[in-house]
Amino acid sequence: MNVNGKPYRAIWPDPDDPAVVKIIDQKVLPHRFELIGLRTMEEAVAAIKDMTVRGAPLIGATGAWAVYLALVNRPATGDAPAFFEAACRTVANARPTAVNLAWAVEKVKAVVLKEKDVSAWRATAFDEAARITDLEVENCRRIGLHGLPLIEAIRAKKGGDAVNVLTHCNAGWLACVDHGTATAPMYAAHDKGIPIHVWVDETRPLNQGARLTAFELLGHGVPHTVITDNAGGHLMQHGMVDIVIVGSDRTTATGDVANKVGTYLKALAARDNNVPFYVALPSSTIDWTMKDGVAEIPIEERDPMEVRSVWGLTGSDGTLAVKVPPEKSPCANFAFDVTPGRLVTGLITERGVCPATRSGIAGLFPDLVKA
Amino acid sequence: MNVNGKPYRAIWPDPDDPAVVKIIDQKVLPHRFELIGLRTMEEAVAAIKDMTVRGAPLIGATGAWAVYLALVNRPATGDAPAFFEAACRTVANARPTAVNLAWAVEKVKAVVLKEKDVSAWRATAFDEAARITDLEVENCRRIGLHGLPLIEAIRAKKGGDAVNVLTHCNAGWLACVDHGTATAPMYAAHDKGIPIHVWVDETRPLNQGARLTAFELLGHGVPHTVITDNAGGHLMQHGMVDIVIVGSDRTTATGDVANKVGTYLKALAARDNNVPFYVALPSSTIDWTMKDGVAEIPIEERDPMEVRSVWGLTGSDGTLAVKVPPEKSPCANFAFDVTPGRLVTGLITERGVCPATRSGIAGLFPDLVKA
Repeated sequence: MNVNGKPYRAIWPDPDDPAVVKIIDQKVLPHRFELIGLRTMEEAVAAIKDMTVRGAPLIGATGAWAVYLALVNRPATGDAPAFFEAACRTVANARPTAVNLAWAVEKVKAVVLKEKDVSAWRATAFDEAARITDLEVENCRRIGLHGLPLIEAIRAKKGGDAVNVLTHCNAGWLACVDHGTATAPMYAAHDKGIPIHVWVDETRPLNQGARLTAFELLGHGVPHTVITDNAGGHLMQHGMVDIVIVGSDRTTATGDVANKVGTYLKALAARDNNVPFYVALPSSTIDWTMKDGVAEIPIEERDPMEVRSVWGLTGSDGTLAVKVPPEKSPCANFAFDVTPGRLVTGLITERGVCPATRSGIAGLFPDLVKA
Repeated sequence: MNVNGKPYRAIWPDPDDPAVVKIIDQKVLPHRFELIGLRTMEEAVAAIKDMTVRGAPLIGATGAWAVYLALVNRPATGDAPAFFEAACRTVANARPTAVNLAWAVEKVKAVVLKEKDVSAWRATAFDEAARITDLEVENCRRIGLHGLPLIEAIRAKKGGDAVNVLTHCNAGWLACVDHGTATAPMYAAHDKGIPIHVWVDETRPLNQGARLTAFELLGHGVPHTVITDNAGGHLMQHGMVDIVIVGSDRTTATGDVANKVGTYLKALAARDNNVPFYVALPSSTIDWTMKDGVAEIPIEERDPMEVRSVWGLTGSDGTLAVKVPPEKSPCANFAFDVTPGRLVTGLITERGVCPATRSGIAGLFPDLVKA
């Protein structure tokens, strides 16, 4: 999508230097727009770990490019398969929750290991990383097409007013290379001239909603309002939300959804107020091995400093982080939660919309569920 | 309760100057501890409006003292009853949600207007404001006594581990002159040697949890951990919360509870995970005229700048506010929400614990429900 009138993706190989992969530094958005050139696997892993890049599909794509960068910098001598296996393991373990990461690394690894000529590994990895990246974009475009009728139906029923969508965190193009997952139906509706307004949960602790989703929507001209994470229940009680659309970091084969912490609370409020609650996701985020999301999905506990401090713009146009609680009060930082499938109206995928149940998912993905 | 070893209330008449009422500047806690001397009704109203004082019982007590300060500064000439009526109206309208404010103003007004000698009004108002303030303290102490057995019962069932309490916002002594409402059972349990640990919701936008509740608990030595408002659902799903206790700004005669925005989301999560959800309140916060909280309780919409900006400590030990979203993105600030009585396990009041229903409340307060 566009930033200041120029189209961007969230990751791309540098056309001027094939040993460099470019990303947008998402830690300094929206107050600075800075590009970073990744030159090594270690730099790519650090970017994943410290959330310079974030969002399940982008983490997956970055993982694929990280494996490519490992091969760019492969020592001329030594055990190439052992080096490559270790690199893949390092990349796959950079973040625990996003299933896309392991999926993308596994994809590149499989294609590379099929290639007997070690000198061709680098080019093979490049092509596969590019293919995975393009696939994420195409999946998001299709999610937009399949989600669009849900918004159109509300618009048809509601008449004159804008359709009010609520979203949590950033499952936008910044998280997904392009289009986004949760945002794809919103961009598709807006681009088709359907009046929509998006309630943007600020999404503490890292404020990806207030910082990134608002930045995206502002850049694309989509009407929106930033609210606290606490406000969605009140809005739903008063008919001010027509539909909730969020993304997912990992979805079980039974329809349980791990997403940014707080998603579960919005799903409960949607259910209590009969507001449809949809989760938009490419099938690459489905974990076919899992049955019970609350019991099985590991939830990342991150640095408490992310809770203690808030980063933003100062009056003098600089940026810094301020610490809110007393310095001696402990903080804890649970980064995700799991929304049981029973609270999800439907999953919006690249193949269409399905119930958040084992049979619903299997119906759309018979080929994958058997794998 | 104590601050740095010295006992404080949240409001008191200056013993050295009867024309001054002292408060703690709650806007600069926990990073600065500053006292303010209020000299006029206008200063007291401004302190209520800008949340230098906040919390339903403290707002009520401050309202009573504001009426007193109006009489301290009453012009020697002019229509005394008209002046007094106008002052009472101004004070009662300083904040729309807290029913205590109108209640306390009405109390002082009634007592003053019974006094035929206008020259005795000031002393009459002082005595009544002091009586209301002491009453709030005594009510909170009793709430603590009645809430204590709930924590003791969990402790008895659970054995060795600390009882995990979750609370939202600050319904502590800072909000209530002393003891607090939601915190009163926690202080009572801790002082009795029952091991408790409190999950403190940071409570955006103004972070009264992270700033004030954490400050209180730290000062009193109660183990606690600050979390984002998004995290409570995850904690409850994983058995990490034994009981939720929150306060209330206004409760209907049918048990619907208006409290800081986000309370409703925690109540939904508690219900979904069979975690008991209690609301602690003095009966002065019950609005006997209201039946349907969601439909009837007016919800204050405050300055969007409170959502846009976050105030805290900088690295150089100063304090400032940083702005999080893009400057051109609109923000909205709904300050409260309503938790329907059906989600509330019980109300902890100065007379005991009762169901959050019309008959439950009427059973404890037969004298008031008829009024």
